[in-house]
Amino acid sequence: MVINEPQVLAELEKVFAEYEQALVGNDIATLDRLFWNSPHTLRYGAGENLYGFDEIQAFRNARPAHNLNRTVIRTALTSFGKDYGVTNIEFKRAGSERTGRQSQTWVRFEDGWKVVAAHVSLMTS
Amino acid sequence: MVINEPQVLAELEKVFAEYEQALVGNDIATLDRLFWNSPHTLRYGAGENLYGFDEIQAFRNARPAHNLNRTVIRTALTSFGKDYGVTNIEFKRAGSERTGRQSQTWVRFEDGWKVVAAHVSLMTS
Repeated sequence: MVINEPQVLAELEKVFAEYEQALVGNDIATLDRLFWNSPHTLRYGAGENLYGFDEIQAFRNARPAHNLNRTVIRTALTSFGKDYGVTNIEFKRAGSERTGRQSQTWVRFEDGWKVVAAHVSLMTS
Repeated sequence: MVINEPQVLAELEKVFAEYEQALVGNDIATLDRLFWNSPHTLRYGAGENLYGFDEIQAFRNARPAHNLNRTVIRTALTSFGKDYGVTNIEFKRAGSERTGRQSQTWVRFEDGWKVVAAHVSLMTS
């Protein structure tokens, strides 16, 4: 299995950047498109545990659209073979000293790369 | 890509259970064996961000061995194809009301299934 094959890693970087831009811009259609539409998809958020695409979508639709901006302070992306990858970032939000962490597991399906599991949290200081 | 092929899912369940038992028993040799030995391996813990196998191993060796026990309250495992999977749990520790979450991404290498990225956090209540 090839780790970080340049072409695969470039694809992962592209969808990851697309997700980040959609997140801070609250572009819900793009966020939805980049998550696997399955009951198996899972997202642990800072304050919620969401099981299945429908719960994740409902959470996004109900979330206030302000204050989603954040500064990424460290990024680590790794691809495995041609169809699998993980993206991890540390981030800070304006007005908070706490460090946030976002972990995503991506799988390439026939209709493109999708997040199949995500975990967002604030580090305990 | 086959999702949750029974044989693959059974393998994932087995290594996941092995990891959980090693964690609560502080069996560091097994924990080390079940993590990918690579500078790309990453573990966000409740209170630390660790990059690379060496940092993860050093953290485990320095951690007090008591109070690692926990009760798993919800489990979600999903496999993708033959070589990839994600394992996610919610858990509680004795003496704490807070919900913990553990996310792991597993890859099957020639020497077995390994965690390539992990994220553990306490949910913000």
